[in-house]
Amino acid sequence: MSNKREHIPVHQRPEWSALKSQCNGLGDLHMRDLFADDPARFEKFSIAIPGALLDYSKHKITGAVMNDLIALARACDVEGARERMFNGEIINVSEKRAVLHTALRRPADEEVYVDGEDVVPFVHKTLFRMRDFSNDVRSGAWTGFTGKPIKTIINIGIGGSDLGPRMVCKALKSFEIRQSQACGQTIDIDVRFVSNIDGDAIHERLQSCDPEATLFIVASKSFMTQETMANAETAKAWLVDALPDEEAVKHHFVALSTNEEAVRQFGISPDNMFAFKDWVGGRYSVWSSIGLPICCAVGFDAYQDFLTGAHAMDHHFQSAPLDKNMPVIMALLGIWNRNFLNYPALAILPYSHDLRDFPVYMQQLDMESNGKGVDRYGRTLEVKSGPVVFGEAGTNAQHTFMQLLHQSAEIVPTDFIMAARPNHPYQDHHTQLLANALAQSQALMEGQDNKDAPHRHFPGNRPSSCLILDTLDAYHLGMLLALYEHKVFVQGVIWGINSFDQWGVELGKTHAGTLIERFENTQKTDTLDSSTAGLMAYLQEKFINS
Amino acid sequence: MSNKREHIPVHQRPEWSALKSQCNGLGDLHMRDLFADDPARFEKFSIAIPGALLDYSKHKITGAVMNDLIALARACDVEGARERMFNGEIINVSEKRAVLHTALRRPADEEVYVDGEDVVPFVHKTLFRMRDFSNDVRSGAWTGFTGKPIKTIINIGIGGSDLGPRMVCKALKSFEIRQSQACGQTIDIDVRFVSNIDGDAIHERLQSCDPEATLFIVASKSFMTQETMANAETAKAWLVDALPDEEAVKHHFVALSTNEEAVRQFGISPDNMFAFKDWVGGRYSVWSSIGLPICCAVGFDAYQDFLTGAHAMDHHFQSAPLDKNMPVIMALLGIWNRNFLNYPALAILPYSHDLRDFPVYMQQLDMESNGKGVDRYGRTLEVKSGPVVFGEAGTNAQHTFMQLLHQSAEIVPTDFIMAARPNHPYQDHHTQLLANALAQSQALMEGQDNKDAPHRHFPGNRPSSCLILDTLDAYHLGMLLALYEHKVFVQGVIWGINSFDQWGVELGKTHAGTLIERFENTQKTDTLDSSTAGLMAYLQEKFINS
Repeated sequence: MSNKREHIPVHQRPEWSALKSQCNGLGDLHMRDLFADDPARFEKFSIAIPGALLDYSKHKITGAVMNDLIALARACDVEGARERMFNGEIINVSEKRAVLHTALRRPADEEVYVDGEDVVPFVHKTLFRMRDFSNDVRSGAWTGFTGKPIKTIINIGIGGSDLGPRMVCKALKSFEIRQSQACGQTIDIDVRFVSNIDGDAIHERLQSCDPEATLFIVASKSFMTQETMANAETAKAWLVDALPDEEAVKHHFVALSTNEEAVRQFGISPDNMFAFKDWVGGRYSVWSSIGLPICCAVGFDAYQDFLTGAHAMDHHFQSAPLDKNMPVIMALLGIWNRNFLNYPALAILPYSHDLRDFPVYMQQLDMESNGKGVDRYGRTLEVKSGPVVFGEAGTNAQHTFMQLLHQSAEIVPTDFIMAARPNHPYQDHHTQLLANALAQSQALMEGQDNKDAPHRHFPGNRPSSCLILDTLDAYHLGMLLALYEHKVFVQGVIWGINSFDQWGVELGKTHAGTLIERFENTQKTDTLDSSTAGLMAYLQEKFINS
Repeated sequence: MSNKREHIPVHQRPEWSALKSQCNGLGDLHMRDLFADDPARFEKFSIAIPGALLDYSKHKITGAVMNDLIALARACDVEGARERMFNGEIINVSEKRAVLHTALRRPADEEVYVDGEDVVPFVHKTLFRMRDFSNDVRSGAWTGFTGKPIKTIINIGIGGSDLGPRMVCKALKSFEIRQSQACGQTIDIDVRFVSNIDGDAIHERLQSCDPEATLFIVASKSFMTQETMANAETAKAWLVDALPDEEAVKHHFVALSTNEEAVRQFGISPDNMFAFKDWVGGRYSVWSSIGLPICCAVGFDAYQDFLTGAHAMDHHFQSAPLDKNMPVIMALLGIWNRNFLNYPALAILPYSHDLRDFPVYMQQLDMESNGKGVDRYGRTLEVKSGPVVFGEAGTNAQHTFMQLLHQSAEIVPTDFIMAARPNHPYQDHHTQLLANALAQSQALMEGQDNKDAPHRHFPGNRPSSCLILDTLDAYHLGMLLALYEHKVFVQGVIWGINSFDQWGVELGKTHAGTLIERFENTQKTDTLDSSTAGLMAYLQEKFINS
């Protein structure tokens, strides 16, 4: 599974040292000068593929830097690791699993083997069931217990079982409006999401729903996620209170899970369970049956396009040479910015209202995958890994935190994401939107000297990428997500990380379990640190005894 | 206005050097040991005031460090700067303005003078108008042009004219549900927000509205903000298309602005304009007439409580000694983490679904205020200023990015925010919520050794604060916002920054204006960098010529 070359920690590779020298050699080089010196810089440092353009010319790079970065990728065997992922090898070593979200978007005539079994037929069987179910819900053929068609769908899930479908449903909102207007047909189903254990989330949602016309989708791989099961139980109690018949649950609840026994015990019929496999990680599960709320919200055809777009990006990632490979280039720029220029964060700014949840989706994808302290052999990492990722839709970000990006000493590399063609009819709005995105990227790079009024001085020399999709529809959204998935994957390979586990979330879970017991049994006397004990006593006085 | 002592850059002060020595002296001290050594640590490092508790014992501090931090605050004349702000002196030096959001929450019997005039009567006159208007809208006394009561309010604004009211309306949602249920009366008005220039935002919103029952609140200090005016014009065109009578605009548009002439030209009657003064900065404007959508959404009484809570925090900030002063302590911990321990970011995690927009509000408040490169005398800052702020509601954050916080080499100080008493009836949900917040803070501090399975090793020693509000109602929300405002203010004073300007957003605006013209007139031949030119050409081909 792994060859000897892989075992070398990245900072011990000669390619790493070469990049250190490159970085030192750059000194206080300003990107303004790089552009002045080379009119072909944009052509050199941009990649166009069908549907998307990546411009990375506004990074502090030279041709020599890029060559050395590519050499680093090759030395770390990015190409081999890529094939091992696509082929279903056990690359999630700590959990002994394959990583096959890419299999979920393969056409039916392709094959991927796990333990000697082709998994593609299972994938397409599940897709057919998702198609039939979502068609039934959208057409009104699926009804609630009293025969009413479904008006509201509430997806109960958290993390990957929430962020993906929630982000995609928002991202395709205007596309969906345009589609409905084009065909003159509106599907009046409201798809909502409840994730937080905070009772305010489910309470607010249930307030405005008609139990007879509400369908709950309970999404949890294990069907044991604390938040999800608490919210599902509260929803079930609410439903049964309104429709006091055991059969009602069968009409108003479906499950997206791998745990059939727990689903059955909850009262959901196995006929209403949509399964997926353990080689689908939570933060990659939007491509699995976790995508069911998307099918209900925008229709199965759009979901299919979403998969097709992702598959197109998979194909690009697998087949393009490293130096023309979008996810590879994005990953290498991230390594350069993080490990050589020492920039600790990454801002992701989609200039798109509908993509406003994309930054939080990326926080999970990137920070949970690569926010690690040890490599896949258990050795402490000697280099910094994944950055702090944050972001906001543009132009809003300009009125939120871009002050810091332009003038503070902290340099934050930025991804600007745009769609060339809008879904709405207001061309002037779209021109202004695009002009603002380009203007920010330009201002960050160029800066502007102002010695007489230092508060108006802009140092510039701040890196950003511009990514342009043809338009924001399901296909291009699929491309976008797969692009970032592969970027994060390549970075993990170079840092030597297992990007597919998340052991860092376990300790807090264990402590939470203990503290819940203590809240319920205040007689316990074993030792806690004085902070936790003091906070609990304060909360108990204010809350429990209130 | 300033004394000589103020002019010394902070890194040249002896108190700064003392802290450097303290920091070096700590070595690899683990917080676990600090807790083991001192059972009274929680009592020493926590502050309780009516309505709130701050526990800061889980920071890498000792009594000696805190003493030196307090000495630094005193040396930087935090106390004098505080009085100058409250008294209306011109502390926003680059724009020659007083900074008086605190005057907006003063009771009617107090006085604050600007240019020899007491501003409190104007504040309360505006509040009375906001009360009458919001009461009329909520009772149905204010109707649209055809006599229909208002069902939907759309606030059009961006930055401070959006983030504050949007966050507060969400933050008080469950409080509002509880209130309506208690008095058995539901006000059926939906308050929505449109900010982005992206046409998808206004388009989606207008799709679902009845023009006869929709009221637009156009919020822009200058009434010239690009995004806001474009959205307002699109909204006006939509309204006039449905109700083709010039008078209709007067019934369906109100303005929150300082620019009466521009408001009148737009077609809004001055009677429907709610003014504020130039000493209210955008990111502090939620306390001004910019708060009108809050009054409409939750009622004027709640808005009044919100102001009262903020005023209580103002009083605490002005009167408590520095070492028992919540905003001062929070500010100093931030300085310690940023400048001595070199942590570049700050995570803000409200364990509250309703506070899910608080982190983005804080991004503006903190990053726009203190994301600066020069001090208030125009000198380049020799120390790092404001951190990268990001966050997410808990428990969701645990399933998003907390992997990185627990196990990566990048240490991210974290603020946990809780409310002791819930607004909803589900006690078990609330217990689980609180237990999770405490458990995360505990796990970050303690860590857990695991040499046999390094991927399950938690280094711990990661700092966090816990802030507990009695409950999440308007009063305590006001306290919370004012607390963070003053924290950011104190940090600005110590770094020597003018926290009240935002020149960093200007260059991008200028470039955007130029690029909009170029999009409309593609014949221009003057030089652009090849990246901006190349991106424009690509967009023009895909969008304009599509």
